[in-house]
Amino acid sequence: MNWLDEGALFSQIGSFLQEDMGRGDITTQSTLMRSQSAKGRFIAKETMVVCGLEAAEAVFSTLDSQQQIEAFVSDGDEVEAGKVIARTSGFADVLLAGERLALNLMQRLSGIATLTREFVRAVEGTDAQIVDTRKTTPGLRMLEKYAVLTGGARNHRFGLDDGVLIKDNHIALAGGVATAVGRARKAVGHLHKVEVEVSKESDLREAIEAGADIIMLDNRTPEETHQLVELARGLAPHVLLESSGGVTLETVRAYAEAGVDLISVGALTHSARAMDISFKIQSA
Amino acid sequence: MNWLDEGALFSQIGSFLQEDMGRGDITTQSTLMRSQSAKGRFIAKETMVVCGLEAAEAVFSTLDSQQQIEAFVSDGDEVEAGKVIARTSGFADVLLAGERLALNLMQRLSGIATLTREFVRAVEGTDAQIVDTRKTTPGLRMLEKYAVLTGGARNHRFGLDDGVLIKDNHIALAGGVATAVGRARKAVGHLHKVEVEVSKESDLREAIEAGADIIMLDNRTPEETHQLVELARGLAPHVLLESSGGVTLETVRAYAEAGVDLISVGALTHSARAMDISFKIQSA
Amino acid sequence: MNWLDEGALFSQIGSFLQEDMGRGDITTQSTLMRSQSAKGRFIAKETMVVCGLEAAEAVFSTLDSQQQIEAFVSDGDEVEAGKVIARTSGFADVLLAGERLALNLMQRLSGIATLTREFVRAVEGTDAQIVDTRKTTPGLRMLEKYAVLTGGARNHRFGLDDGVLIKDNHIALAGGVATAVGRARKAVGHLHKVEVEVSKESDLREAIEAGADIIMLDNRTPEETHQLVELARGLAPHVLLESSGGVTLETVRAYAEAGVDLISVGALTHSARAMDISFKIQSA
Amino acid sequence: MNWLDEGALFSQIGSFLQEDMGRGDITTQSTLMRSQSAKGRFIAKETMVVCGLEAAEAVFSTLDSQQQIEAFVSDGDEVEAGKVIARTSGFADVLLAGERLALNLMQRLSGIATLTREFVRAVEGTDAQIVDTRKTTPGLRMLEKYAVLTGGARNHRFGLDDGVLIKDNHIALAGGVATAVGRARKAVGHLHKVEVEVSKESDLREAIEAGADIIMLDNRTPEETHQLVELARGLAPHVLLESSGGVTLETVRAYAEAGVDLISVGALTHSARAMDISFKIQSA
Amino acid sequence: MNWLDEGALFSQIGSFLQEDMGRGDITTQSTLMRSQSAKGRFIAKETMVVCGLEAAEAVFSTLDSQQQIEAFVSDGDEVEAGKVIARTSGFADVLLAGERLALNLMQRLSGIATLTREFVRAVEGTDAQIVDTRKTTPGLRMLEKYAVLTGGARNHRFGLDDGVLIKDNHIALAGGVATAVGRARKAVGHLHKVEVEVSKESDLREAIEAGADIIMLDNRTPEETHQLVELARGLAPHVLLESSGGVTLETVRAYAEAGVDLISVGALTHSARAMDISFKIQSA
Amino acid sequence: MNWLDEGALFSQIGSFLQEDMGRGDITTQSTLMRSQSAKGRFIAKETMVVCGLEAAEAVFSTLDSQQQIEAFVSDGDEVEAGKVIARTSGFADVLLAGERLALNLMQRLSGIATLTREFVRAVEGTDAQIVDTRKTTPGLRMLEKYAVLTGGARNHRFGLDDGVLIKDNHIALAGGVATAVGRARKAVGHLHKVEVEVSKESDLREAIEAGADIIMLDNRTPEETHQLVELARGLAPHVLLESSGGVTLETVRAYAEAGVDLISVGALTHSARAMDISFKIQSA
Repeated sequence: MNWLDEGALFSQIGSFLQEDMGRGDITTQSTLMRSQSAKGRFIAKETMVVCGLEAAEAVFSTLDSQQQIEAFVSDGDEVEAGKVIARTSGFADVLLAGERLALNLMQRLSGIATLTREFVRAVEGTDAQIVDTRKTTPGLRMLEKYAVLTGGARNHRFGLDDGVLIKDNHIALAGGVATAVGRARKAVGHLHKVEVEVSKESDLREAIEAGADIIMLDNRTPEETHQLVELARGLAPHVLLESSGGVTLETVRAYAEAGVDLISVGALTHSARAMDISFKIQSA
Repeated sequence: MNWLDEGALFSQIGSFLQEDMGRGDITTQSTLMRSQSAKGRFIAKETMVVCGLEAAEAVFSTLDSQQQIEAFVSDGDEVEAGKVIARTSGFADVLLAGERLALNLMQRLSGIATLTREFVRAVEGTDAQIVDTRKTTPGLRMLEKYAVLTGGARNHRFGLDDGVLIKDNHIALAGGVATAVGRARKAVGHLHKVEVEVSKESDLREAIEAGADIIMLDNRTPEETHQLVELARGLAPHVLLESSGGVTLETVRAYAEAGVDLISVGALTHSARAMDISFKIQSA
Repeated sequence: MNWLDEGALFSQIGSFLQEDMGRGDITTQSTLMRSQSAKGRFIAKETMVVCGLEAAEAVFSTLDSQQQIEAFVSDGDEVEAGKVIARTSGFADVLLAGERLALNLMQRLSGIATLTREFVRAVEGTDAQIVDTRKTTPGLRMLEKYAVLTGGARNHRFGLDDGVLIKDNHIALAGGVATAVGRARKAVGHLHKVEVEVSKESDLREAIEAGADIIMLDNRTPEETHQLVELARGLAPHVLLESSGGVTLETVRAYAEAGVDLISVGALTHSARAMDISFKIQSA
Repeated sequence: MNWLDEGALFSQIGSFLQEDMGRGDITTQSTLMRSQSAKGRFIAKETMVVCGLEAAEAVFSTLDSQQQIEAFVSDGDEVEAGKVIARTSGFADVLLAGERLALNLMQRLSGIATLTREFVRAVEGTDAQIVDTRKTTPGLRMLEKYAVLTGGARNHRFGLDDGVLIKDNHIALAGGVATAVGRARKAVGHLHKVEVEVSKESDLREAIEAGADIIMLDNRTPEETHQLVELARGLAPHVLLESSGGVTLETVRAYAEAGVDLISVGALTHSARAMDISFKIQSA
Repeated sequence: MNWLDEGALFSQIGSFLQEDMGRGDITTQSTLMRSQSAKGRFIAKETMVVCGLEAAEAVFSTLDSQQQIEAFVSDGDEVEAGKVIARTSGFADVLLAGERLALNLMQRLSGIATLTREFVRAVEGTDAQIVDTRKTTPGLRMLEKYAVLTGGARNHRFGLDDGVLIKDNHIALAGGVATAVGRARKAVGHLHKVEVEVSKESDLREAIEAGADIIMLDNRTPEETHQLVELARGLAPHVLLESSGGVTLETVRAYAEAGVDLISVGALTHSARAMDISFKIQSA
Repeated sequence: MNWLDEGALFSQIGSFLQEDMGRGDITTQSTLMRSQSAKGRFIAKETMVVCGLEAAEAVFSTLDSQQQIEAFVSDGDEVEAGKVIARTSGFADVLLAGERLALNLMQRLSGIATLTREFVRAVEGTDAQIVDTRKTTPGLRMLEKYAVLTGGARNHRFGLDDGVLIKDNHIALAGGVATAVGRARKAVGHLHKVEVEVSKESDLREAIEAGADIIMLDNRTPEETHQLVELARGLAPHVLLESSGGVTLETVRAYAEAGVDLISVGALTHSARAMDISFKIQSA
């Protein structure tokens, strides 16, 4: 996915607005006039990689199909505190009803994009790529994976149907690495690769012999990773190697230098801090 | 809300599962037998207030209506690292398909309940109550507000239709505190109270004169809060007072001791750290 | 709610049209040409308060997004027999397919608005306000409550989640007025008031002592109501008082003069007579 | 339709409950215990033909799949004031949440069945049958047509796709009775009959010559109806004849004796008075 | 039905696209630029009756509301191999995403229209009409019945609610032709005719005596059909007669000449061969 | 996918039944008693590979949750004419309402499985595997791909999101094979392989150099295919090779013997003939 699917986006925004509005915004309906105009500005309150402009626009245009956002930056741009990210003008009740949701989305997505950018910078100059995981917020996977792309990293599987990743639980239940990989090789479509998680040398050998395309080295130190990489490269030069498990901004470069092709980081989506963005409304 | 609405819960879980499974779990389908049995255990990896057992059970029973969870603790109980929270047994493919979503939900909800418990403890012995905000994850408000209750705090509005809260933007657009409060008094149903956000003394006086039921003191220091509380108590003994804006675990007790009735804390839902919980699967 | 929610309105109209059209209007499809033009006029056949113009327009524009209604009056206006309320022109098949539903809605909503207006006039000059109840037609609550507003009265709860109203059944099951009111005070959000239904003096005293914000005097005569009002005003000047139960156009003024703040009238929605409105179609 | 479609019924009940409950019944949740038991009885407060027992049961079993109603009469039975129609027992919160909707439905449907029974009795001994119209409440057509059957009358079209009925508007737009009937004869499926509305003798002749199967005599007095019936019987013995337009309990027998086969009565569904039924809840 | 219902069409197309696109077209997203323009042409590769232009346009305009098709022929026109049926231009990703579905629909619908046209031609000059059956593809009935109309034949029932057709199974379970027809006569609405399937002379007599409006002669040879037609015409001149069961292009004229009014042909929808149509895309 | 997803299956069956039943089966409702019992048997009328038993059961159990099918064979078994495939007993109205849909599905799916089995047999003893395409019936892809598996072949992509397949249109718009393959290599997730369609030697070389994992040889004769296979095996032994385009039962073995790994056959789903199966109902 390089682009957000508009249909899916609007359907989600509609249900998020429904969650917040219920039978209607009784504060605005009881304090303002129906046709009152207003304008609003999104302002960054700290340094960040901006993400979520399309989502914010979708919030307002769901409430009023005429409503648009004029953005001064693009998703993926870095801005400093004080930067006016975007502005919009229209009916006051639309701005007030959409404010909270638009902020909730932009703050979270910008947080993910910003953290991702830090990880990507940390491995600059190496051959390793940062990828995300399935540890996303239930219901927000599409948006959160888009924020990861915006930050400069790559996406791992979008769901259980989007790739074969044989984990320790599968291996235990199938009765061993060779059996699990062998079965997968035979059963999945010819367009899918087979990835398998291993944590020790013997499993690595077994996986490669059974024809695994990608090996995930799970919860290894950078040193252990380096040894397993050496071994794997000797056995099968074309196999992709991925590090996974507890990788932090502090340790990520060591993994990259250990020679893996991919480093998956759950923190990109489950631990990103929401960025501080404000929305100022004025009479228009 | 004291209870989770089962219908709404199941409908959400169904769409979260759809997001993750798409056309089906191709790894499990290609490595395991259809009828293979397994059992799994949820284990706390750190000290936490548990929350989300019903949600986790809903994940598995959506996949297989026979599947149940045997819980060894209740939502709201505090557990230590190593505690087996719950166990379940059934078809291996059901356990593997539901694992990630069940964990994502329990880790997040337990995180909110745990953080909430800390805030509640911090004000113990005072008359102040901790309440949440609308800064919840889009799509997860019902579950996150339930986690706040589980942690021991109270819920603020569930949505824009669930209470009148006149903020600075409304006041600016309406043309002043008195106008905004006066209009709201007349327009909203007789079962609703009127809350208004003020940050200075003159606005506080105006709000009370206009008949506000609740005053939110926004972004004040504990000292400023104390002075405004004194003033308000003198003018209108029955008006409820709420502190809001940037309250932390460090500062919350000072606000409580400043004499407010309610302290709203956005961090309960937007900044709770996911708790570390694992799910171990074995052949059964 | 002061405004109709457009999204909700269109979604309802869509399902009402589906109910009536099924696989399509076979009479029109078999007797007319596809592109035939026509014009139609809505004509009042008796004196009434008009209500439902937006709903009627939504019917036609759901069938053809270009279709609009030119209205000669506004919702809430009183018209005499013979008045052309609105006109529309477009494709004949659209007019014929929407005619029945548009009339069903306008006739019912105008009936509610007209009856409401009569109740409101009957209490003119007193301090009492007329409010509706939850005795609305299943599926039409939003529209019927809008018609009540159009007629000049106020809305009571929109649903069970929109206010605390402790009735005799709750009191019996909870074990008394004081228990029920006390529990509600503690459990509901701080933005909600607590209303309780009482029918005798001792319960009234108990309710006020327990902190009820609103007292509903159920099924009392105007005289009994007057006595209870006197008592309540003496005990708690700020408590709101509501009369309820079998109030008619004949008795409503007596209740108003007995001093209550609110009079709830189920008849507004469950007993309003449909107004007589016709829709005349001509070739255009 | 002789039977209620269960799937459609439950889907409607679900949306009616959603309309009333929103985020949940805050009164019951804050005043009662979650697991409290109760029992309730439906009691007729006046003489009526009972209708809607299945709908009422569907309300409670949607809230709790275990909940059932024990009925002491069947839909279509006549009962006197004071009769206990049905009883149910279960969780108090389920009974309280479903009470209003169950009553709203039973009261309305019993009203329609009762009025229908009166019309049916009024024509007893003649060859005429009472039928309903499309003047039903938007969203409730299936249930209201079922109530008409329960009362002893027959159903006219369920919707615009369920029969060809050429009205004055179609005739005007098509350019005459013969054209309209002729086109319909050719275009509609061979399983459908063609009904046409006429109000004068020349149109009646034209309609019969063009091959109409059924003639609707619109807004004629009983005397005019009798003359048109005589004429029609002479021209085409097998054509069905229907009276329509403003028929009341006072005039219906005169129409029946004028010799028509069918008398359609909009009042059955748009003017039936809700029957008085109460629901008494006790601790169980 | 003479016209396609646009709302229903778009809702189906949306779900068909969802089936094919899932989370998005990863090939196009990874090989082309987002804003790249292209144009495409639909070209007939063999002689056919074209059908499905509206459906194809709906595919592209669902993906991009601006996208339109310029058609050079109309549904129902016959074209030769090499004919450019229609062209469209717009975003390359829209053309590539919609190509397969648009072709799948046009090829299938044109196949049905083409085969239908052959059957219609085969009975030209007789009084018999060709009609379809319920042997349509699940989910595509509306479109396939439209293709039958386009080909020049007529539609039988659209579903089980759209006409009374008493088959051998009903007769066996009801206990005979007379019982089944008699019950149906009494129970169904007065706008519906009663059709009954018979295969021998005695049943034919019984059906006509019981008042059947239409007789389906099932699985008879043309000769047997001719004898039954003679008998029926003698007994009841106005009854419609339908041949059914295994009718082919080779035998259809013999049935028509046997004197029936209608010949139903399941093959129109379950055995039509998809027409060969290509879609050529170029840079624009 | 090795297993049918039950949730998705039931949701589809529900909408297919809705399409056929509309407001209800008026023939059965007017000729039979509500509680009448019956039993039915599915009988093969010709030799076939059976497929669709689960789908047929889902039809009946959607209508009545108690209804089950007792199958005498399994999906994938070959049966002779006259074989009773399955039987069921229950309410007559359920059997009659589900009969047509159950047959439509089983006949179509058994047709696909039977044709697939013929193709699989035709290449027995070679290394080639038969795979399907996206030329499935809109709305039935999941079921039709399941029938292909049942017949013994393998599935190609389930949709545009399920694999990268660069076709001639992509190549033309991207500006060449190397550009298109190169871009795809960089943009898609590491779990996806890249397949590209080529029809001449130079493109084959370019594709392999650019790193394609799979080469589709489109519309080549078996001889041309053999030459391209030789060339490809020399350049890149691990690349998978697929034949595609107009492959028939007559030519499929020649392609297999030309040395490709995969042969995709659109005819499996778009040209399979429905198998002849009957459903006999008796009183029970």
